Amino acid sequence: MSVTAPAGFEAAGVAAGLKSTGKPDVAVVVNRGPRKVGAAVFTSNRAKANPIIWSQQAVADRIVEAVVLNSGGANCFTGAFGFQTTHQTAEKAAELLGVSAGDVLICSTGLIGTGDETFRQRVLSGTEQAIAALSADGGDAAAQAIMTTDTVAKTAVISRDGWTIGGMAKGAGMLAPGLATMLVVITTDAVLEPLQADEVLRRATGQTFDRLDSDGCMSTNDQVTLLANGASGVVPDLDDFAAALTELSQELAVKLQGDAEGASHDITIEVQHAVSEQDAVEVGRSVARNNLFKAAIFGNDPNWGRVLAAIGTTNAQFDPYDVDVWMNGVRVCTEGGPDRPREEVDLTPRATHLVIDLKVGDSTATVLTNDLTHDYVHENSAYAS
Amino acid sequence: MSVTAPAGFEAAGVAAGLKSTGKPDVAVVVNRGPRKVGAAVFTSNRAKANPIIWSQQAVADRIVEAVVLNSGGANCFTGAFGFQTTHQTAEKAAELLGVSAGDVLICSTGLIGTGDETFRQRVLSGTEQAIAALSADGGDAAAQAIMTTDTVAKTAVISRDGWTIGGMAKGAGMLAPGLATMLVVITTDAVLEPLQADEVLRRATGQTFDRLDSDGCMSTNDQVTLLANGASGVVPDLDDFAAALTELSQELAVKLQGDAEGASHDITIEVQHAVSEQDAVEVGRSVARNNLFKAAIFGNDPNWGRVLAAIGTTNAQFDPYDVDVWMNGVRVCTEGGPDRPREEVDLTPRATHLVIDLKVGDSTATVLTNDLTHDYVHENSAYAS
Repeated sequence: MSVTAPAGFEAAGVAAGLKSTGKPDVAVVVNRGPRKVGAAVFTSNRAKANPIIWSQQAVADRIVEAVVLNSGGANCFTGAFGFQTTHQTAEKAAELLGVSAGDVLICSTGLIGTGDETFRQRVLSGTEQAIAALSADGGDAAAQAIMTTDTVAKTAVISRDGWTIGGMAKGAGMLAPGLATMLVVITTDAVLEPLQADEVLRRATGQTFDRLDSDGCMSTNDQVTLLANGASGVVPDLDDFAAALTELSQELAVKLQGDAEGASHDITIEVQHAVSEQDAVEVGRSVARNNLFKAAIFGNDPNWGRVLAAIGTTNAQFDPYDVDVWMNGVRVCTEGGPDRPREEVDLTPRATHLVIDLKVGDSTATVLTNDLTHDYVHENSAYAS
Repeated sequence: MSVTAPAGFEAAGVAAGLKSTGKPDVAVVVNRGPRKVGAAVFTSNRAKANPIIWSQQAVADRIVEAVVLNSGGANCFTGAFGFQTTHQTAEKAAELLGVSAGDVLICSTGLIGTGDETFRQRVLSGTEQAIAALSADGGDAAAQAIMTTDTVAKTAVISRDGWTIGGMAKGAGMLAPGLATMLVVITTDAVLEPLQADEVLRRATGQTFDRLDSDGCMSTNDQVTLLANGASGVVPDLDDFAAALTELSQELAVKLQGDAEGASHDITIEVQHAVSEQDAVEVGRSVARNNLFKAAIFGNDPNWGRVLAAIGTTNAQFDPYDVDVWMNGVRVCTEGGPDRPREEVDLTPRATHLVIDLKVGDSTATVLTNDLTHDYVHENSAYAS
């Protein structure tokens, strides 16, 4: 059910010819109210696509009526013409929905530099088709339409005491902090005030999507949007709601990790006993971005020396000669020296669990990444063609 | 001739059984004087191998008699036993050469965690063999003995007005800033004062080895050493000497780039018109570390969008929407938008030239990197085996 699981939302996904495969490529999600609360977080890349520039302004008043999303073209670095395309898309959706264009967010994904006249016409006609097809059952179709190199649509739903959260996500590469090449729309029928929506969204993404670092590459188009309409009439406990939103976001993040381009291992990097959560994240991310470590995991090689070489580049507090490292339950390094023989580590399962015990504090953080594989190189060496 | 090209240096390379292939794996370079000036720069990784910890102390007085180098084991994260191995190696060399152990530098390269009793015995016997084999023609043999996954020995020689500089380098992966997994020994018969040697070495490495970033991974064992004996009796103009040392270092750096593990392209990233050299290096390095860009170059795909997405993650001063990008002489992006069609770019040659014009200042810097290939993944997925 995806984004249409909560009451008061409609969605659709249609094929507008943006994808050469003819698969669905334009999605629309509409909030039917009564409240039109919206919050969004965006890529921190300074190179931002036109839809990001538009949506950052549009969400500033925290009122969002609808989100229009397309795959098959990022509309990034396409100049003034590209920005006009985004603007016209919002105008078209607003006109058909009877709302203000300034309350319509736009998301695009695909190749950077794509955004010509043909692209514009197809996005506009796709928006029109999708709005004509809106339905309270359209969540799954919308989730299909935002896929690029994704092999499966990613959706999640959580229901609690009278309210529901639904979400859809796309992303299969360029997954890095400050979000990834991910587009996420999350809906809820809980009653949230605008500032509350903003706060819980930032809290949830900071713990989940921001800690997914598949390949260290940050996208120009990332956006995670939360729409809240209060249709359930239930005012949730804010901490309960934040916990549920974090759980749903983590479920989507894990699905993104599991579908990362060419990956053969999903690696969970758990950093323990850091002096701060920030230190733990920095240490985890340094490993998540180390190509040598990631290639070793692809080869089922428990090369813990590469873990230590990676974390040695950070500024986090710890003694490199008093660190323990565990791989899939086997302690391969104790106090910065060899422990159990590497032969005891079985890295053949896709799920890979790395524990780094810094032994200096009480903070913990987990970063998710993938291995570096032949298929990753292959998929990304010919993306444009 | 490598490190024995300048007068007053002897070297040797021997096989001590550290490499399973039976190839040479221990090298010694000895300064026969009259001066025994030495300077060295080391990895900035906090995870440092035992030879680094030893050599940092040994070089502090800027007197160096000899350097002992081994491949076939990094002696990193091998605990107190490993440090004793390094210490014993320096003692053994000092005893045989009739010098102080505190004037012998040690370098090791190979798998992290390797440094057991067998390793120790082989390094010690290799040191003995190599010292017995020292000769004024031994430079090439020494260059052979420090190779790991290198496919060719890397040496360079420059002669000027009465003085000569010779160098050898090893490194074929884990090439990143603050040096790479490189061991470099440079010798000269010019007359240099200790502080001058230190200054020119830092100036040269900062412009050359520190701007080689093959795979973003920083080693635990990197060391670049300069030995100066004044045997020529010539006091060089310091700027002339620094220029020659930089030229020789760049020649070795380019040879390291050209032999990087699995690479099919040598990429020169030239950042123009930055407000500072530091900004230019930061921008260049962000591209050098972007896996998506590097995979695209492997696929001969002039995907300039990935260049902009990479530089957008930096803090350097520039407007992402007023940047020009050239690939192999074709301007593919002007003012942040598409320019010449990508079909005009021929990326089939191994030498790849990327120009990024930031248009905000007068500073320029060049960073060297390689593409991300199937062979890189393959070579690094089974390194331990």
